[in-house]
Amino acid sequence: MNQKFTLLFFIVFFLFVQQNLFSQTVNVNTSAELKAAITNVKAGSEIVMKNGVWKDLQIKFYGKGTKENPITLRAETAGKVSIEGVSNLSIGGSYLVVKDLHFKNGYTPSSSVIQFKISNDTIANYSRITNCVIDEFTQPNREVSDHWVEFWGRHNQLDNSTIVGKSNFGPTVRVFLKGNEHIYNYHQIINNHFGPRPRKGGPHGETLQIGDSDTSMSPSYTNVSNNYFDKCNGEVEIISNKSNFNEYRNNIFFESEGSLVLRHGNYCIIDGNVFIGNDNSDFIGGIRVINTGHWITNNYFYKIKGNEFRSALAVMNGIPKSPLNRYNQVTDVVVAYNSFIDCKSPFQFGVGANVDKKNVLPASEIRSARPERMLLANNLVYNSIADTIPVINYDDVKGVTFNNNILNSENKSNVTDKGIITKDFDVTKVSDYLFVPSKNEEDVYQGFDFETIKTDLFGRNRQEQNSIGAIRFPVKENSVLIKKELYGAKWFSETDENYKAKTIQVSSAKALQTALKSAKSGDILSLKSGIYKFNDPLVINKAITITSSDQSKKAELRFTSENPGFQMHPKGELHLENVVLKGDETQDAIVTLVENMSKGYNLFIENTEISNFKSVLMAYKASFADTISIDNSSIKDCLSGIHLNTEVDSKGDYNAEFVHITNSTFDNVQSTVLNYYRGGYDESTIGGNLVLKNNTFTNSGGADESGLLIQNFGIVNVDFSDNTFKDNPVKEIAILWGEKGQKPVNNTIINSGEIKIQQNLVQKLMY
Amino acid sequence: MNQKFTLLFFIVFFLFVQQNLFSQTVNVNTSAELKAAITNVKAGSEIVMKNGVWKDLQIKFYGKGTKENPITLRAETAGKVSIEGVSNLSIGGSYLVVKDLHFKNGYTPSSSVIQFKISNDTIANYSRITNCVIDEFTQPNREVSDHWVEFWGRHNQLDNSTIVGKSNFGPTVRVFLKGNEHIYNYHQIINNHFGPRPRKGGPHGETLQIGDSDTSMSPSYTNVSNNYFDKCNGEVEIISNKSNFNEYRNNIFFESEGSLVLRHGNYCIIDGNVFIGNDNSDFIGGIRVINTGHWITNNYFYKIKGNEFRSALAVMNGIPKSPLNRYNQVTDVVVAYNSFIDCKSPFQFGVGANVDKKNVLPASEIRSARPERMLLANNLVYNSIADTIPVINYDDVKGVTFNNNILNSENKSNVTDKGIITKDFDVTKVSDYLFVPSKNEEDVYQGFDFETIKTDLFGRNRQEQNSIGAIRFPVKENSVLIKKELYGAKWFSETDENYKAKTIQVSSAKALQTALKSAKSGDILSLKSGIYKFNDPLVINKAITITSSDQSKKAELRFTSENPGFQMHPKGELHLENVVLKGDETQDAIVTLVENMSKGYNLFIENTEISNFKSVLMAYKASFADTISIDNSSIKDCLSGIHLNTEVDSKGDYNAEFVHITNSTFDNVQSTVLNYYRGGYDESTIGGNLVLKNNTFTNSGGADESGLLIQNFGIVNVDFSDNTFKDNPVKEIAILWGEKGQKPVNNTIINSGEIKIQQNLVQKLMY
Repeated sequence: MNQKFTLLFFIVFFLFVQQNLFSQTVNVNTSAELKAAITNVKAGSEIVMKNGVWKDLQIKFYGKGTKENPITLRAETAGKVSIEGVSNLSIGGSYLVVKDLHFKNGYTPSSSVIQFKISNDTIANYSRITNCVIDEFTQPNREVSDHWVEFWGRHNQLDNSTIVGKSNFGPTVRVFLKGNEHIYNYHQIINNHFGPRPRKGGPHGETLQIGDSDTSMSPSYTNVSNNYFDKCNGEVEIISNKSNFNEYRNNIFFESEGSLVLRHGNYCIIDGNVFIGNDNSDFIGGIRVINTGHWITNNYFYKIKGNEFRSALAVMNGIPKSPLNRYNQVTDVVVAYNSFIDCKSPFQFGVGANVDKKNVLPASEIRSARPERMLLANNLVYNSIADTIPVINYDDVKGVTFNNNILNSENKSNVTDKGIITKDFDVTKVSDYLFVPSKNEEDVYQGFDFETIKTDLFGRNRQEQNSIGAIRFPVKENSVLIKKELYGAKWFSETDENYKAKTIQVSSAKALQTALKSAKSGDILSLKSGIYKFNDPLVINKAITITSSDQSKKAELRFTSENPGFQMHPKGELHLENVVLKGDETQDAIVTLVENMSKGYNLFIENTEISNFKSVLMAYKASFADTISIDNSSIKDCLSGIHLNTEVDSKGDYNAEFVHITNSTFDNVQSTVLNYYRGGYDESTIGGNLVLKNNTFTNSGGADESGLLIQNFGIVNVDFSDNTFKDNPVKEIAILWGEKGQKPVNNTIINSGEIKIQQNLVQKLMY
Repeated sequence: MNQKFTLLFFIVFFLFVQQNLFSQTVNVNTSAELKAAITNVKAGSEIVMKNGVWKDLQIKFYGKGTKENPITLRAETAGKVSIEGVSNLSIGGSYLVVKDLHFKNGYTPSSSVIQFKISNDTIANYSRITNCVIDEFTQPNREVSDHWVEFWGRHNQLDNSTIVGKSNFGPTVRVFLKGNEHIYNYHQIINNHFGPRPRKGGPHGETLQIGDSDTSMSPSYTNVSNNYFDKCNGEVEIISNKSNFNEYRNNIFFESEGSLVLRHGNYCIIDGNVFIGNDNSDFIGGIRVINTGHWITNNYFYKIKGNEFRSALAVMNGIPKSPLNRYNQVTDVVVAYNSFIDCKSPFQFGVGANVDKKNVLPASEIRSARPERMLLANNLVYNSIADTIPVINYDDVKGVTFNNNILNSENKSNVTDKGIITKDFDVTKVSDYLFVPSKNEEDVYQGFDFETIKTDLFGRNRQEQNSIGAIRFPVKENSVLIKKELYGAKWFSETDENYKAKTIQVSSAKALQTALKSAKSGDILSLKSGIYKFNDPLVINKAITITSSDQSKKAELRFTSENPGFQMHPKGELHLENVVLKGDETQDAIVTLVENMSKGYNLFIENTEISNFKSVLMAYKASFADTISIDNSSIKDCLSGIHLNTEVDSKGDYNAEFVHITNSTFDNVQSTVLNYYRGGYDESTIGGNLVLKNNTFTNSGGADESGLLIQNFGIVNVDFSDNTFKDNPVKEIAILWGEKGQKPVNNTIINSGEIKIQQNLVQKLMY
C-alpha cells in the first residue's frame, strides 16, 4: 500500500512537472480566458485560440519571452480563427509571436488593427506577426484614418502574412520612429502579400510608410524584402520611404499604380526588385528618387509606361534648402545595373521642375535644385519596338554622370552622352515577364564602392562574371521571375471559386426587388418590356446588370417617390443596359449612401434613357467610384446631372477615379451637367480622369451659378474631344488646365459660350 | 684573393639590399628634389625635408602606402622645417603620413593650407597629419576666406598638432562630405591644440566645422577627441557640427568665447568634455542643441556664465518644418550625468524663440517648435553662491522630461518639476577647476539605453558604482582636469619667453620715430614736455605706450600734413596716455591700413586731448579692433569722430568687438561722432559691444546726414548710461534696440533731441 502510494505520488508529481516545465500550452475558448491566459504567460508559453469566430475582441498581448523561449499566441488551426467586428490586437514586451489569425468582417476601434505597442511605456521588441491575414478590415467611413499594422519598438517582424482590401484613409503598414525607442529598429517586413489595395481617390493610400517628415533624419534600418505588392493602387506612393538606411530587396511590384518613393530620408538600398507594368496603364510606376545617397541596383522594370512621377526612374528636382516636409535635392545617388525592358522613356530627370509656376506658387514650392553628383552606370534598356526617347529631362542634367549604359534604340532624346550607348543586342524570353540579354555585356564601369554590388538580381556572383543590366547571363534554366505562391499566408485564398453568373428573368417591380436581394454578384436581371414602378430605392451592393430582354422595346423603370431610384452601397457595381429610367423631378436617379460608404462602387450605363430626375447621380462625401461610365445614352429634362464634387476639404481627394462619358446626349439638364472636383494642391497626389468624347449637349446648364456647363476643377487627366455644344445658355463650356496638357479637340460649338484654357490653376496648398 | 672578392661582393650586395628593402629614406634639400622624391615614392618610402626655411612651396604629396608600410614626409628635425610665404600642402592617395612641419610667416594661395585631396580624382584616405604646427598663417586680407586643414576622403587623421592665430574668414578646420567618397569618413581629430583664435567680428570664424547644411543628412562619423580648444574666440560657434553621428569626447574648451554647436545633423555623442569659463566673461558658452537624437553625457561645465545662445546648455526652439539651412526642432535628445559647477542658469530652453517677431521676419524664420521627447536626467548643478534660476525657459518646456537632476540652490525658476530636486550637498576642490561632490548621489534614473553610459568623465565604471553628475566619487588622488601639455605639437611653444618691457625716454619727433621702430612690443615711450611735429604717420605694429614723462605738462603731438597721425598695422596695440594730439583738420588722427589688415589691433586712449582732426579714428573695410577704449579724455573741434562702419555687406561683420567710451567729453565734433555698425540679420552671429558711460557731448553731430548723434545700428550689447547731452543740433541722440534689452539709463538731455528705442530692427537676412 505504501509502495503504491509512493508510485502514485511520483506519477502525479511527474505530470505536474511536465505540465509546468515542458508544456505551457493553454487553450482558450473565450475572451475572458484569453485575457486570463495572457496575464499568466511566461517565457515559453503558448496560448491557443479555439477555432471559430471571435467577435469584438481587443487583445492586449503582453509578455516577456526570450529568444529561446518566445511566447506564442496562435489559432487552433491556421486560418480557422477569425477575429471580427470591432476588434484589434496590440502587443507589448519581448519575443512574442502571433500567428495564424484572420481579421475580417470588421474594423479597428483604434488607430490600428495590429500594433507593436500597448502603450508608450509598453512597447514590443523582438516580436513577430506571422501567417496572419487582414482582409477588408476597413473602416465604415472611408475618411476615418487607420493603419492595419503599426510598427513601434525595435526588431519586430511581419512575415508570411496577407493584407488585402484597405479602402479607407491611411497607409496599410506604418513604421513609427518617434522616439529613441523606435530608431535603429531593424524591423523585418518579409515574404508578405500586400494588396490588392483599391484606388482611393486622393492621398493617404500608401501600402507602406516608414517614418514621416518629422523623423526623416532618423536611422531606421527597416528591411522590406521578398514581398509581393499586388495591384496596390491606393495612391501614387506604394511605398513611402521617410527615414534613413532602409533596404528594399527582391520585392515584386505587380501592376501597382504607384511607385516606390524615396520621399524623405536618405541612404536607402533598393536592390533586386521587380516592377511589372502592362500595355494598358501609364499609372504603374517604378522608383521615384528624392534626397541623398540611395543606391538603386539590380532592379528589373518591365513595361513601365508611366510618365513624370510614374516613370520607371523618376528623379525629382528639389527645392533649394527645402523645408523638412517638401523636396530635398537629389545628391550622391547611384543607379547601377538595372534593366528596363519595354519601358517608355525610363529615365526622367528634373521631375517636378516648376520654375514656370513662380506666379502661382510661393518661392518655397519652386523645385529648381537639380540632381547633383548622381551616377547612372551599367544600366540596360531594351525595347522590342524602338523607344528613341530613353531620357526625358525637365531640367538640365549636368549634375548626372552617365557611364556605360546601353540601349538598343537610337537615342534621340535631348540628353546624349558618351555614357548612353546605342548597341545592337538581343534579349530572350526565359519565362513570363523575364527577358534576358543573349550574352553578357561585359564592358562595365567600376565606380566608387561598386565592389559592394556583389551579385545580380538572381544572387549570382558578379565578381566571377559581370554584365551590364540586372541579370547576368546565363540564367538558370527555367528561371522564373515571379512565384506568387511564395508570398503571404499560405492558407488564405483571396478569391472565391469562380461563380458562373446567372440571368434572371423579371417581369414585375416586386420581382425585380426580390431578385435584386437574392442575386449573386455578377448576375443579370433581364426585364420584360413594360413599366416598373418603384417607391423604394433599388439597393446595389454587388455586381448587378439590369437590362431589357427585348432591346427594341426597352423596359421602363419609373420612380414615383422622393426616394432615389438606385442606392449604391459599398462594392456595389451597377450595369444599366438598354433600359429607360424615368422620374418625376422629385428624386435622384442614382445616389450613394450618405455615410458608411466604406468601399468603392462602379456604375456603367449603356444604351439607356434617363429623364425627369432631380439629378442623375448624387455622390455623397467620402463615397468613391472607381469608374462611372455613360455610353450611348441620353439624359434629358433633368434638374441637374452628375454630382461628383463633395470632397471639398481641398486635401487632394475626389469622388471618382474614372469618369467616361461618351457618345451620349444631354438635353435640357437645367443646372449642373457635370461637376467633377478635386481640390488642394500637391503635385504628388495626382488623379481624376475624365473622358468626355463625342457627346452632344443642348439647352443645358443655364441655371448653374458657376456659369459653366462642365466643371472639372483640379482633375488631372482630361480628354475633351469631338463633342457638340449647341444653345447652352452658359458663359463658358469648360475651363481646361493648360499645365496638365488639357486642350479641347475637334469640338463643335454653336451658341454655347467657349472653352477656356487656364495654364495654372490657383489652388490651396494641402500642407 | 678570390675569397676576399667574394666577401666584398657580399658586403656591397648587403648594403644595396639594405638601402632598397629596409630603408627607403630620401633626403631632400630643394623644392625640385622634393617634387622628384614624391614622384618616386612607394609603400614604405620616407622623404626627409632638410631643416630650414622653405619658401613659396606648394607640395602635392601623392602616393600609395599600405597600413604596414605608409609613406612619410617629415622634417629632418621636428619643428626645424618651416614652410613660409605663399605655400600649401595637398595630399592624395592612401596611408600617407606628414609630420613635424611648421607653417608660418605666410598664407595659402588656395582654399586651404593643408588639404586631404589633390583633386576630386585624387583624394587621400587613411592618411595622417601629425606633430605639425600652423601658426598665424593667415591671409593678408581678412576677408579672403580659407581653411587651414580641409578633410576629404575617409579615415584621415589630424593629431598632436597645434593650430593657432587664424584671423581671416573661414573655419580653421573643415570636414567636407560632398560626395559618397567622403561620407562614413571616420576621420580622427585627436590630441590637438587649437587656438587661441582671436575675435573676428562676425561669422565664419569657427574653429571646426564638419559638413554644411547641404550635407547635413550625411553619415559622417568623425571623431573629435582629446583636443584642447584654447580661447577659440572666432565666433559664437567653436565647433559647428553639420553632419550625423559625429563624436566629441574628452575635449577641453578653455575660456573659449563660443559653444559646441549641434547646428545641423543628428545623433552626435558629446561625452566627457570640459567647458571652462570664468567670472569675467558671459561670452564663454557650453553646448547649443539643435536637431535630433544627440546624447550629451558626462560633461563638466565650470563657471559658464553665458546667456541664451551662450548658456551652458542652450536648447533651441526650431522652425516648424524648417528649411534645410535653418533650425530643426530638437527631438529625442538625452542630457544625462553632466555637472555644472558655479554656472549661471545652466539650462536654457526655447532659446531663439521669436514668435514676437512675426512682423519683422518671414514666417519661415519663426522659431516656434519646442523641444520634444527630450530627457534631462542625473545632472548635477552646484553653485557656491546660490543660483536660484537654474532653468530659463523662453518657451514652454512640456516636451522636456526631467528625472533625478539635483541642485544645491533653491529653484525659483519658472520651471519646477519633481525631476529637479534641491538637495543639500557639498563639493570638494580636488585640483584646479575640478570640484567633486563629497559623496555619490546614488539615486540615478535609468532611462532607455542608459546602460550604454558605462563610465564617468574619468572613464570609471558606472556599473560598479554610480552617481548623479559627470564624476563618480571618489576620484583618484591628485586627479587633474586639464593637462595643457598633453595637447598639440610638443616642440612648439606659442609664447615668447617673457619680455620685460622697457621705458624709453624721448624728447624729439625724430627720436620718437626712431624709438617706435626699434621698440619691442610692450615698451613705453615716455615723452618730455613739448611739441612734437610729424609729417609722416606713426606706424603701430606692436604694443606701444606713448605717454608724457611729466603728467602735469603733457607732451603735444602735432600733425601737420594730410597724412594720418597714427597708422594701425596688424597686431598693433596703441596706448595713448596723458598726451595731447593736435591736427589742422586736414588729417585723420588714427587710421587702419586700407588693405591687408590681416590681424586685429587695439587702441587705448586715456587722459588724452584730441583736437582739430578730420576724424579721430577711421577704420577701413576688413580691419578689426578687438578693443577701442577712450577714457577720461577730451575730443573737440574735429570734423568727425570715430568711424567703425565700413562692414557694409550686411553679412554680420563689424569693425570692433569692444568699444568703450567712458568719462570723456566730445565738444564741437561737427559730423559723425560715433558710427559703430553691424549689418545683416542672423541671430546666431551676435556681437558688437558698446559701453557709452559718463560722457558729455556738446555742440556735436549737426552735420551728419543721419540726424543721429550716436549711431550703433545692429550692435547687440549696449550700455548707454550716465551721459550728458547738451546743445547737440540733432534730431535723435541714438536709436537703441529694444529686443536686445537696450535702454538709456540716467542720461541728462538738454536741448539735444531724444533717445529712441526701436523694439525690432528691420534687417537684411544674411542667407
